[in-house]
Amino acid sequence: MAHEVAIAALQTLLGARLNTGESDRALHGRSEALLQDMAPDAVAYPESTDEVAAIVRVCAAHGVPVIGWGTGTSLEGHALAPRGGVTVDFSRMNKVLRIGAEDMMAVVQPGVTREGLNNELRATGLFFPVDPGANASLGGMASTRASGTTAVRYGTMRANVLALEAVLADATVIRTGSAAPKSSTGYDLTGLFVGAEGTLGLITELTLRLQGQPEAISAATCAFPDMGAAVAAVTATIQSGIPMARIEFLDAGFAAIFNDQAGLDLPLQPHLMVEFHGSDAGVQAQAEAFGEIVADAGGAGFRWATRPQERNALWKLRHNAYYTARALYPDTDPLTTDVCVPISRLAEAVEESAADIADSGIPGPILGHVGDGNFHALLMPRKGDAEELRRAKALAGAMAERALRLGGTVSGEHGIGMGKLGYMETEHGAGWEVMGRIKRALDPAGIMNPGKLVRGN
Amino acid sequence: MAHEVAIAALQTLLGARLNTGESDRALHGRSEALLQDMAPDAVAYPESTDEVAAIVRVCAAHGVPVIGWGTGTSLEGHALAPRGGVTVDFSRMNKVLRIGAEDMMAVVQPGVTREGLNNELRATGLFFPVDPGANASLGGMASTRASGTTAVRYGTMRANVLALEAVLADATVIRTGSAAPKSSTGYDLTGLFVGAEGTLGLITELTLRLQGQPEAISAATCAFPDMGAAVAAVTATIQSGIPMARIEFLDAGFAAIFNDQAGLDLPLQPHLMVEFHGSDAGVQAQAEAFGEIVADAGGAGFRWATRPQERNALWKLRHNAYYTARALYPDTDPLTTDVCVPISRLAEAVEESAADIADSGIPGPILGHVGDGNFHALLMPRKGDAEELRRAKALAGAMAERALRLGGTVSGEHGIGMGKLGYMETEHGAGWEVMGRIKRALDPAGIMNPGKLVRGN
Repeated sequence: MAHEVAIAALQTLLGARLNTGESDRALHGRSEALLQDMAPDAVAYPESTDEVAAIVRVCAAHGVPVIGWGTGTSLEGHALAPRGGVTVDFSRMNKVLRIGAEDMMAVVQPGVTREGLNNELRATGLFFPVDPGANASLGGMASTRASGTTAVRYGTMRANVLALEAVLADATVIRTGSAAPKSSTGYDLTGLFVGAEGTLGLITELTLRLQGQPEAISAATCAFPDMGAAVAAVTATIQSGIPMARIEFLDAGFAAIFNDQAGLDLPLQPHLMVEFHGSDAGVQAQAEAFGEIVADAGGAGFRWATRPQERNALWKLRHNAYYTARALYPDTDPLTTDVCVPISRLAEAVEESAADIADSGIPGPILGHVGDGNFHALLMPRKGDAEELRRAKALAGAMAERALRLGGTVSGEHGIGMGKLGYMETEHGAGWEVMGRIKRALDPAGIMNPGKLVRGN
Repeated sequence: MAHEVAIAALQTLLGARLNTGESDRALHGRSEALLQDMAPDAVAYPESTDEVAAIVRVCAAHGVPVIGWGTGTSLEGHALAPRGGVTVDFSRMNKVLRIGAEDMMAVVQPGVTREGLNNELRATGLFFPVDPGANASLGGMASTRASGTTAVRYGTMRANVLALEAVLADATVIRTGSAAPKSSTGYDLTGLFVGAEGTLGLITELTLRLQGQPEAISAATCAFPDMGAAVAAVTATIQSGIPMARIEFLDAGFAAIFNDQAGLDLPLQPHLMVEFHGSDAGVQAQAEAFGEIVADAGGAGFRWATRPQERNALWKLRHNAYYTARALYPDTDPLTTDVCVPISRLAEAVEESAADIADSGIPGPILGHVGDGNFHALLMPRKGDAEELRRAKALAGAMAERALRLGGTVSGEHGIGMGKLGYMETEHGAGWEVMGRIKRALDPAGIMNPGKLVRGN
């Protein structure tokens, strides 16, 4: 009832940009996670911060949930609407507001995607490095503290959001951070909103750190006799201090998937995919140092991609790995895992996980941003096979528990959403209750993205 | 009265490690800021997290303030006791608990100083980069989100604290973060406590990111005809992407101070002090690229320090600059400023500030971590001269307001404490009230470091 009154008010406010149609609601009620669909009562398409604040004001007055939506590519059900409410779709707030080339930063609306921003940056010699697989919105990436293949060099969203604007649960608009490279003035509210998954407010503007396009870039793949050898090479590389721009692992399963997808002929062995950024001489020196480590670890078969087109094809393959694998196994219900461990424990984490998966009989190729200690198994139980689903969930649970036992975390980059709520208390102990206290202080009525991240929200 | 009961209980708990003596209280009631002394009722010297929690439990039961103390080198009165209470001096919690060389991290107690940690790391080939002028405690550095000369390359405490343990206002002990390089599991509590200035709890353990000692290091000073030329060289250097390890500015005033202190013969002109880290070839390439930028900007007179002893002497001079200047002007009451602006606005920020200072007739040499857009004027009004003090405060205020106008912040690294409370509302607007809400959620009785950072605390 309260929802109906709020929706009527929002219709007056937004006109056709408030959609209560079945199909649009259904579209915004789906997720990439193995969770049931949960549709909102309406989808709002604001065009400005003022409109977002007005939407939140109406929802707050009626106790109606408010859920942010970027591109819908979250993997843990971050944008589901378990209590209905209004999904705020940021697709019309997709402008790059300012590129500060001298300060190497860009101010963007939250609906701009990472590829959209990089397209606009093309002529500037600058780029934005954070690159999850999906062409996600930057607001969504900030909200899930996303990373990707380049975090080993350039950091995650935590390091790359300098400042932001957010609309709080009471419709207050705040600006956090500044355009200065650092600050020591009070609680790090920017850092608090990055990774908060929309539970503290909606991000309506982001100031992002940019990087200069390196003078030289070189990428390669190389193969290893076994998983242990590949991971040993990663550990040695990170510890050697070679400033890797990317260092990605894929197992034989993903090598096969890549061959199938792109007509490659990678040997069916574990691989590393790497990239070097720097001056011509620097890239060459890095590649040589890395080559020695690979040879010491028993790796071989370097294939270089120095031309931009080849490189782009290689990384496109990597970015699409999840979607490609899903397409190749259409009769499965994929379950993505996302653990992250200290580099010193990476070998045992990957090898034990791989052994468990092999034992289970469920397809579960592994790949990951191993320079950060982060890897994913894509577990693929057969559609409708309850027993396989149960086993896949047990595998995912064992991976998460192993990560915690090894001093790591149950999510390196995908976030908590609804999918990983069950691990929060184990990972954070009393810290989870602290998160709850912060949530209640900023959103006492619990209208901002309910059901996600904090207890009983 | 409540204080007396609490102190009696703490005496039972800590014995001689609870000191109510006049001189120790006075020592812990002083600051480096131009603020009056404010002594606590007692000073506690805990030796473990359990003892810290027990202290907080007693204080919470009686509503007695709890103030953390590292080395007392804060510049904004962070550890003053405006409402009395118990100062928790961490000098007996000064152990390096674990060095994880493979993971390039160290676990330390909060009383370990940055030099203490680096001494213990000497044999490992690793170092901890963050280096404020003082040999501060790492707990204090985390609490003020400190940085120093190397932040331009390695980041501030925000980037270098991976995880921490803290005792909250209700004596709950929480652990935030993990030993994994990144995580996406909930609010960034680590980031929230870094920079919270002890107002949300006491940090009792830190997991810090370490760096590998570079293969080659080279440092140099060079002189510029005027301030604008030096700053132009900085801006061009940062924008060129040369991975500077350090790039520090000092004006003619500080060149004179350095000459006086160390028997140098630097020309009385603005200087840059720089350092390059990398491979032999990398350092040489960086130095050449930087040399070209300096020449283009009209700089000259490179003096190189490649031997470790020379380099150490150079940086020691820089780290001690504040104390040296104070000693050279014994009949003044120095007032340190700490603004930070976007690199694109650095030239006007420095030049306008220098012009104002010159007009004022008050000595105010300038130096700074200009690669971060951060600089300090050390304003030195004569002791007891109310008119000079007023003018110095007006200069500091004008610098802070200019920084905000240029899109920057009133503190790059010193923090807010009691000294800069007056700027918080201007800098953060409604965000300051959000900080207050977080404070009240975690410390409803306001016992943790009252009078600092948040409103009415």
